[in-house]
Amino acid sequence: MIVLFTDFGTRDPYVGQVKARLAVEAPGVAVIDLLHEVPDFNAHAGAHLLAALVGGFPPGAVFLAVVDPGVGTPRGTVVMQAGGRWYVGPDNGLLSVVAARAPDARLWRITWRPDELSATFHGRDLFAPIVAALARGEFPRERLAMVDAPGVEFDAGDLPRIIYIDHYGNAWIGVRGEPRVARVSAAGTVFAYGTCFGAVEKGQRLWFVNSVGLIELAVNRGSAAATYGLRVGDRVDVERVN
Amino acid sequence: MIVLFTDFGTRDPYVGQVKARLAVEAPGVAVIDLLHEVPDFNAHAGAHLLAALVGGFPPGAVFLAVVDPGVGTPRGTVVMQAGGRWYVGPDNGLLSVVAARAPDARLWRITWRPDELSATFHGRDLFAPIVAALARGEFPRERLAMVDAPGVEFDAGDLPRIIYIDHYGNAWIGVRGEPRVARVSAAGTVFAYGTCFGAVEKGQRLWFVNSVGLIELAVNRGSAAATYGLRVGDRVDVERVN
Amino acid sequence: MIVLFTDFGTRDPYVGQVKARLAVEAPGVAVIDLLHEVPDFNAHAGAHLLAALVGGFPPGAVFLAVVDPGVGTPRGTVVMQAGGRWYVGPDNGLLSVVAARAPDARLWRITWRPDELSATFHGRDLFAPIVAALARGEFPRERLAMVDAPGVEFDAGDLPRIIYIDHYGNAWIGVRGEPRVARVSAAGTVFAYGTCFGAVEKGQRLWFVNSVGLIELAVNRGSAAATYGLRVGDRVDVERVN
Repeated sequence: MIVLFTDFGTRDPYVGQVKARLAVEAPGVAVIDLLHEVPDFNAHAGAHLLAALVGGFPPGAVFLAVVDPGVGTPRGTVVMQAGGRWYVGPDNGLLSVVAARAPDARLWRITWRPDELSATFHGRDLFAPIVAALARGEFPRERLAMVDAPGVEFDAGDLPRIIYIDHYGNAWIGVRGEPRVARVSAAGTVFAYGTCFGAVEKGQRLWFVNSVGLIELAVNRGSAAATYGLRVGDRVDVERVN
Repeated sequence: MIVLFTDFGTRDPYVGQVKARLAVEAPGVAVIDLLHEVPDFNAHAGAHLLAALVGGFPPGAVFLAVVDPGVGTPRGTVVMQAGGRWYVGPDNGLLSVVAARAPDARLWRITWRPDELSATFHGRDLFAPIVAALARGEFPRERLAMVDAPGVEFDAGDLPRIIYIDHYGNAWIGVRGEPRVARVSAAGTVFAYGTCFGAVEKGQRLWFVNSVGLIELAVNRGSAAATYGLRVGDRVDVERVN
Repeated sequence: MIVLFTDFGTRDPYVGQVKARLAVEAPGVAVIDLLHEVPDFNAHAGAHLLAALVGGFPPGAVFLAVVDPGVGTPRGTVVMQAGGRWYVGPDNGLLSVVAARAPDARLWRITWRPDELSATFHGRDLFAPIVAALARGEFPRERLAMVDAPGVEFDAGDLPRIIYIDHYGNAWIGVRGEPRVARVSAAGTVFAYGTCFGAVEKGQRLWFVNSVGLIELAVNRGSAAATYGLRVGDRVDVERVN
């Protein structure tokens, strides 16, 4: 299984070009679009999103993970194996939270350069062929050089900021949740805990532990983002109760 | 064939998580994204959209149908067989228009609860495994209990309201159309009948019977929604001519 | 491989209906969503986008190309073979730039009409069955009549206008690029050349030759469209340096 995690956008022609390459080089492998709307250029939010999301994917899954505003500059590129899954992407911190939280992460720098390499679309030209090889069960040793750690590393602890806002207007926080042990406030407003949306009245706000284990802010049958003016990057206060 | 019909949004990471589960539990089965932008939380509009859209899908198709603001509350969940197709989703009326219009609908309540069940994502945790079983050709009898009818039922007659607005700005009405037998008005404006967009001048409005049999309001090469301020839920007057 | 190139939108139920038809009539064939957000009704921009994008697809690929505001009127419909690839769509100029630039283009008019043909969704009812036949390796001779050229032809030279704006706010120009040989200005502003986004400071503008060979305007880690008010159709001045 190949899993795509990018900021390429769902409506642009970038994902289709990557998939065409994958269909040619790894025919018959299932390709799953996990997320193409990582906040643009935001590898930091992306790193925390990716770490939260990978748990649901089976061993052997190969992630093409691209949030890469430095594409075409001399920034590095990496392949990682962690928790039985593979990851391919830029070395700009995007994979570093998964790496730091996995006891068994191994990393390689990509030394290979394809004959046809655009300056602005390494997802298609550089990463997709590596992903396809891994998905075929091949380890492209001659294209890689082992390294000890990512060149760029973000703090792998919780990130008390909004890292994603979904189309309902729910805000994902980069903090792993434990029910009933925290006080959560954002935009000057305290959110009450609920197990699910219907735990509060229509139009009322709540925080809950979402389906990938993060704290999430919502309004039942409404938009927390619109109601409280929430934006990606906003700070959120999460207080642990003793 | 598995068909996804939800309000999960096209840009969020929810659909990908469902597809990963399906790829593991029903490998090799084609998964079709029919609609992920059912108006948010709107099972009523969703029920009429679903009833209009299913005709084009072959016998044996398994629909995962989720518009489920009550997820995590004690609302029921159902499996339905109707017209040779299968449906899995919440028992909140979403499947009830298909049920009422099918002479052969049979329903079961889902009694099973998986070991890992999030409070807010039953599409992934509860419905997808049932859908996968059906798509593999298995009927998961031990997870179901037969019921006579949906617990929540909407009126299965026509719904004279806007139930969907597409990205062109065309407005779908929950009324099944018959050419040249109606007078249609919305937002205080009478729409003239046309067979297709090009039947009127550029910028002019029309109503037509759309490709799934519903009355639809449009502007040739323009946006009816923007021009006339149309919104989902707006009332539309449809007069039958004797 | 089947490739979809349309203005059907990513969020509407049109693509799913086409895919259901393809899954039934050409089971097991990979279907790639290349672009569903061709600027609405804009076959001219679409023709230049398609010509730029097809290079990355393998021989034998079958394109379903639909930007078709004249659907249901007596406009023609065509099948084309060019550069080893197949194309199916309306005869409104959409395929004409690919046709004019391919030395080996051959065209056929579609004479067939299916028993069930809606007035507004020929992508599903007319084009998809033809595409499926070609993808199965069959040439549906009895449904076609050879013609010499498209009935509608756009100028196949460069088009010095914005033909697409992606979700980052980057603007694609219908002019094929050669590095360092042009002066590019739009919206009264001269853009400096850069090889990639990171070649200029954050927030600065640049033009570059994009990954499909077109001139593209961008702002490093920002939106050129929002910053300079760019819109599809805007004129761009591209001066060749001797």
